[in-house]
Amino acid sequence: MTQHITIRPLQIDDAENGFFDVLSQLTEAPKLPLERFRQLLDQQHHHDLRLTIVAVGSDNRVLATGSVMIEPKFIRGGRPCAHIEDIVVDQAARGTHLGKRVISSLIDHCKVRQCYKIILDCAERNIPFYEKCGFQVMGAQMAKYL
Amino acid sequence: MTQHITIRPLQIDDAENGFFDVLSQLTEAPKLPLERFRQLLDQQHHHDLRLTIVAVGSDNRVLATGSVMIEPKFIRGGRPCAHIEDIVVDQAARGTHLGKRVISSLIDHCKVRQCYKIILDCAERNIPFYEKCGFQVMGAQMAKYL
Repeated sequence: MTQHITIRPLQIDDAENGFFDVLSQLTEAPKLPLERFRQLLDQQHHHDLRLTIVAVGSDNRVLATGSVMIEPKFIRGGRPCAHIEDIVVDQAARGTHLGKRVISSLIDHCKVRQCYKIILDCAERNIPFYEKCGFQVMGAQMAKYL
Repeated sequence: MTQHITIRPLQIDDAENGFFDVLSQLTEAPKLPLERFRQLLDQQHHHDLRLTIVAVGSDNRVLATGSVMIEPKFIRGGRPCAHIEDIVVDQAARGTHLGKRVISSLIDHCKVRQCYKIILDCAERNIPFYEKCGFQVMGAQMAKYL
């Protein structure tokens, strides 16, 4: 993996360049029909509260992705809180610090958006990785499936 | 506490009816200038991704509040994920199941919005409360303050 890596916002043709293949290594993520994908991407641009970025190689294949949701708040003087979500690095690209670069890029975005904090949920085994990225364990994540 | 309780969306005059006093029992939440509060509330209505509800007594005083952020997703066939945030019950109203009613009302909203799951973060001591609301511990919450 010595190829040149570009980190940039997700774009419509990433659907054909492995975006859903990479996401599928994280969770159930079937490829969306192009029109639905375009609609979600357009909505994301329109409300301007969620950003998805991808790391691509020189062939434009998606090697990693991550998202951040900016949550407006009434607490803390009205400053928003950021939620980092859906971080995944392609199996073939692991061990090349791509995950760290994706997180770092998302943190930069949160600073620009003047968030007072960034939170994320992870499995116990991933705690050391996020500690290296400057995060601290704060509590428990709970979930209810509908 | 035998008064009649109404659970409804946050509205502008709640700023004068104890909304920030209740929020301040959760975290740093200084009362926002009216114009800033109105702007945040209008934005919330406009992007339609975050809902804040309040439980009020017959005198319209805020006794509890909770919010939910609907996060659009590319995973899971494009169904959104909900984040429950900023749950707090006024000290004087604790032990009256208001917290459970606020959570239940937020869960109903998540069902209407067809979320595939609801997540929240909490301190270890609050795990039993959320278990009673149907949530399960999934992992760790991590945070980075900016």
